[in-house]
Amino acid sequence: MKRKYSVFLAHVGTFSDRYCAGYSDKRYEIEDLFDRVKSIPLLSAVDIALTPDVIDKKDEIVKNLKRTGLKVASVCMDTTADRIFSQGSFSSLDPGVRRKTLEDAKSGIDFAAEVGTGIFTIWPGQDGYDYMFQADYIKERELFAEGIAACCEYRKDINITLEYKLKEPRTHSYISSIGTTLLMIEKIGAKNLGVVIDFGHAVFGYETPGETVALCKIYGDRLMHIHMNDNYSLWDDDMICGSVHTINYLEFIYWLRRTNYEGYITFDQFPYREDSRDAVAESAKWFDYFESLMDKADMEEIETVLVKKNAVESSRLMRKILMGQA
Amino acid sequence: MKRKYSVFLAHVGTFSDRYCAGYSDKRYEIEDLFDRVKSIPLLSAVDIALTPDVIDKKDEIVKNLKRTGLKVASVCMDTTADRIFSQGSFSSLDPGVRRKTLEDAKSGIDFAAEVGTGIFTIWPGQDGYDYMFQADYIKERELFAEGIAACCEYRKDINITLEYKLKEPRTHSYISSIGTTLLMIEKIGAKNLGVVIDFGHAVFGYETPGETVALCKIYGDRLMHIHMNDNYSLWDDDMICGSVHTINYLEFIYWLRRTNYEGYITFDQFPYREDSRDAVAESAKWFDYFESLMDKADMEEIETVLVKKNAVESSRLMRKILMGQA
Amino acid sequence: MKRKYSVFLAHVGTFSDRYCAGYSDKRYEIEDLFDRVKSIPLLSAVDIALTPDVIDKKDEIVKNLKRTGLKVASVCMDTTADRIFSQGSFSSLDPGVRRKTLEDAKSGIDFAAEVGTGIFTIWPGQDGYDYMFQADYIKERELFAEGIAACCEYRKDINITLEYKLKEPRTHSYISSIGTTLLMIEKIGAKNLGVVIDFGHAVFGYETPGETVALCKIYGDRLMHIHMNDNYSLWDDDMICGSVHTINYLEFIYWLRRTNYEGYITFDQFPYREDSRDAVAESAKWFDYFESLMDKADMEEIETVLVKKNAVESSRLMRKILMGQA
Amino acid sequence: MKRKYSVFLAHVGTFSDRYCAGYSDKRYEIEDLFDRVKSIPLLSAVDIALTPDVIDKKDEIVKNLKRTGLKVASVCMDTTADRIFSQGSFSSLDPGVRRKTLEDAKSGIDFAAEVGTGIFTIWPGQDGYDYMFQADYIKERELFAEGIAACCEYRKDINITLEYKLKEPRTHSYISSIGTTLLMIEKIGAKNLGVVIDFGHAVFGYETPGETVALCKIYGDRLMHIHMNDNYSLWDDDMICGSVHTINYLEFIYWLRRTNYEGYITFDQFPYREDSRDAVAESAKWFDYFESLMDKADMEEIETVLVKKNAVESSRLMRKILMGQA
Repeated sequence: MKRKYSVFLAHVGTFSDRYCAGYSDKRYEIEDLFDRVKSIPLLSAVDIALTPDVIDKKDEIVKNLKRTGLKVASVCMDTTADRIFSQGSFSSLDPGVRRKTLEDAKSGIDFAAEVGTGIFTIWPGQDGYDYMFQADYIKERELFAEGIAACCEYRKDINITLEYKLKEPRTHSYISSIGTTLLMIEKIGAKNLGVVIDFGHAVFGYETPGETVALCKIYGDRLMHIHMNDNYSLWDDDMICGSVHTINYLEFIYWLRRTNYEGYITFDQFPYREDSRDAVAESAKWFDYFESLMDKADMEEIETVLVKKNAVESSRLMRKILMGQA
Repeated sequence: MKRKYSVFLAHVGTFSDRYCAGYSDKRYEIEDLFDRVKSIPLLSAVDIALTPDVIDKKDEIVKNLKRTGLKVASVCMDTTADRIFSQGSFSSLDPGVRRKTLEDAKSGIDFAAEVGTGIFTIWPGQDGYDYMFQADYIKERELFAEGIAACCEYRKDINITLEYKLKEPRTHSYISSIGTTLLMIEKIGAKNLGVVIDFGHAVFGYETPGETVALCKIYGDRLMHIHMNDNYSLWDDDMICGSVHTINYLEFIYWLRRTNYEGYITFDQFPYREDSRDAVAESAKWFDYFESLMDKADMEEIETVLVKKNAVESSRLMRKILMGQA
Repeated sequence: MKRKYSVFLAHVGTFSDRYCAGYSDKRYEIEDLFDRVKSIPLLSAVDIALTPDVIDKKDEIVKNLKRTGLKVASVCMDTTADRIFSQGSFSSLDPGVRRKTLEDAKSGIDFAAEVGTGIFTIWPGQDGYDYMFQADYIKERELFAEGIAACCEYRKDINITLEYKLKEPRTHSYISSIGTTLLMIEKIGAKNLGVVIDFGHAVFGYETPGETVALCKIYGDRLMHIHMNDNYSLWDDDMICGSVHTINYLEFIYWLRRTNYEGYITFDQFPYREDSRDAVAESAKWFDYFESLMDKADMEEIETVLVKKNAVESSRLMRKILMGQA
Repeated sequence: MKRKYSVFLAHVGTFSDRYCAGYSDKRYEIEDLFDRVKSIPLLSAVDIALTPDVIDKKDEIVKNLKRTGLKVASVCMDTTADRIFSQGSFSSLDPGVRRKTLEDAKSGIDFAAEVGTGIFTIWPGQDGYDYMFQADYIKERELFAEGIAACCEYRKDINITLEYKLKEPRTHSYISSIGTTLLMIEKIGAKNLGVVIDFGHAVFGYETPGETVALCKIYGDRLMHIHMNDNYSLWDDDMICGSVHTINYLEFIYWLRRTNYEGYITFDQFPYREDSRDAVAESAKWFDYFESLMDKADMEEIETVLVKKNAVESSRLMRKILMGQA
């Protein structure tokens, strides 16, 4: 099956962390970044995060989209990089911050429409808390839900998608797991509201990504976008897709197929010490390899095994999918 | 504030694990277990889990309740100890197992009414999976929800309470977190359906127990029962309450008070190598100590600090509560 | 490369955990267990754990070894199943328990010699602590080291191998990681003292098993035995080998080859709900598959990639090993 | 007992992470940082990390030390912030990088002597790997050990102290745990080589910090310096000391007293969203509170409880220490 692959534009650039302010001395302009994405086999799109360094370069982005022919998989608002959000965006107790958040969201949604994507992503990384006795969980969650509802109301032709993550940059996020995310979505109830599954966030939150896809199906068919990467199951290491897990991806793809997900697979990784373009190229090759294995697998046989609830049969099936025989 | 404390009757007995079939050579009959609970200061009730070894001793339990004057905090059905449930109870793909599960539930609910508790607890420890490609997540979750709905229908004067846990005995449980639990409750929608928070399950699932209480409040005021113990944040160690965490309990109690929880605090711990009665006595003293600290705390001051969203103030508040001054 | 595969005799039997006293109603006698092992393709040996239920059946074991022609990969003493060890074996503060431990060790070592294996394994699962303020770490560790030294002294023709594990059944073990294990071995200094790597223990202790092999090489070439299974990186799930991880096994095998490990691969898993014989058969097929992939890999190319320290090259190499091409 | 408290000079400044390039718009010069430390009650010293932004300001540091009267608890070399170390410092496969590392170490050691501290700290954050098949563990560890040995050789009047950490910024560090650290120290064997325990690193590596102190005592009395902070047991959250754990600190202090640690307690925390000076002031108050509790505790009684190996007694002891009575 041919998937549509994308990458966050900035993620073919350079990276820093809390210790090292820049792992590379290279500087990539918008144009360079587009060229780098364009050069990666299998990729046909970019995701645009409207961080402070990019927010004023919308025209340049539009120009480069035309120039390269790349599509836009999603537009993602910033609620994390700008320090104004350091104690929350939609959940901020400061009405001024909440106002700015909503304004940013609206202009981001309009930009999404302009660049031809129906997916507008909110990853509320600063909405949460670090310490106990630091937050009024009820009040802040209410404010958060109000803000999201307002985004959904603003423009019904664009889907608002929530990306959950257990922690980081806060020690605790409000939109923490598939459970709390779907719960909020159910309560807001808007049709144009859904989920972004970040494969790595699911894994390090001790979710089984395939089951996460199933949960999205059960509770309102809410899966709208996907971020891809890999990690060691305990932190958002944001590594090259396929470099740690294998079987996990295969089951994930099975459930994507069974629930008819046809959106983009967007690589969202932090290759601090690598050439970031090459790291994305690797991820695409890995994912494509996993897809090719599932192309050869027998979907009906899988369904038959699943209802046997027998781990020996499951193991045999995994080997068969991986080795082409058992 | 005077809490009502209880303990699972069997948990003043003896314990085994997967390596050691019995950490003690003592044998306690039902009568002994009641005497042991009765002897613990601060405790006024028991929780009864209807495991295979107890299920035929209902009369004896009733007799001992009268004899000792102990109340019943909850009745809990067995879906874990009997090997018939090894691949699930309410979610079992075997109609015979599902039928037995529902029958057991109904007779358990009736027993709850008989012994004067309004709380009937279901901890579906075997409902989940161990391996990838082992389960049809959609089908099994649907079956599970149907079974729970039938329990709620059976008798409206008894509250059905779901106890979630991330894992163990399965590597993955369906009722895994406060999020997936409330999601299922919302969908079933019955008024007599709620949540048991096991403090330790919340902690090792990387929830903040105080926030878990708040989530129950937000989504339908669903907190109905509480299990207490402690652990090292990574596994359900089921240790003496207060032996690892401190601040976490204080914030938890704050949210219990703020949301007006007035039910039992039931100790649910596995003191493999200790005298189990004494271990419960310790837990009760710890919890009572935490309550006494919160008695001295200023609830309004706490609320004021929470909306400052300032960790330095939070730290000062914690010290003040703990030390009686800052 | 043809590995020698073995399994713990008891692990083709039945299992229980702290909730369910027996997941199967089948009962296997010693003879049955041997027949089951004998029937598994690829296996040529058993490991014998001298638990209380087996300790008096040495003659029967010897008889069945002859009957089936199976070899013995290792003999493992019990320091966990017998409740006398519930507060430690070699580290026990009770001189009587320490005396029994050493006597058991000596007779176990003799039995190892009798059944023709040079590997005597000690997994000190109860030597550790659960609570803070529960143990005098210095005193207990000294006692433990003295006991191990005495075992090494007893008979120089048998290798004493220590199996480390971060936790369980205690919340904290003394022999917790490859680091603390090698440290103790270095200090005792006996030539016939070494390490058992349990693959799953390494993984859930956040070790990279391949690096663990390298550490054994660096610090005295101490790797003497291997236990195999799989898990989700956070607990000793003891699952079918290959059912969760893939790349991890390949790197592990690379380091086994590079450091010339030629001992047994012993399956040590807990298939609670499965036919345990079939679960072992699956593990053997998985491991053999991983070995066959490494047979096709170019060892020199791998070494070349390792010194490039370039994750993109590493990813390409992994794909090449797995897919047979990159 | 009066402890000597210090803080990393830069940690009363401002912070960034991988998402937000600066959580504060304040800019503190060296002079300001010194003033901020000076203003914190209980603190009498600073630790100086020779990061690229500070390395050329040694004169200014010396001047401000004189001006404020603050002592130096330790000097710490940089092997993390300068991107030249992104694939390792002492373990780098590039001889040029290793040469620079050693030169930096030597000039740092001289600076330590100049500012009157005997503690020179190496935290080799980039020495490790991210991916499997990315590193030759044997070769890199050998290079690392050679470099450390050279540092110890350089000047015997200064203690070289190694700070271990399981992970971050790499997914895996070579100096990962107390075990692997002591193992390397034992092998190098220099008298002026020791350990820095970072309390938080110990906790999120699933060590019990009190036991870690005991291990340093057992294996050569190697504890030379201490970093203090707190976290949720799964990541290096670097929070205000005392804001998460309580009992853990008390046991830690017990073992510090029992093993006669008399060095500095250095606060090493990342208060991204807080006033960093105030966050350190909080930590000092917390730690001092814990010390005051231990002042009142009976050291002999503790020792008596430890050899009972009875968790109920341990729990009672903890309550007694915390509440002043049991």
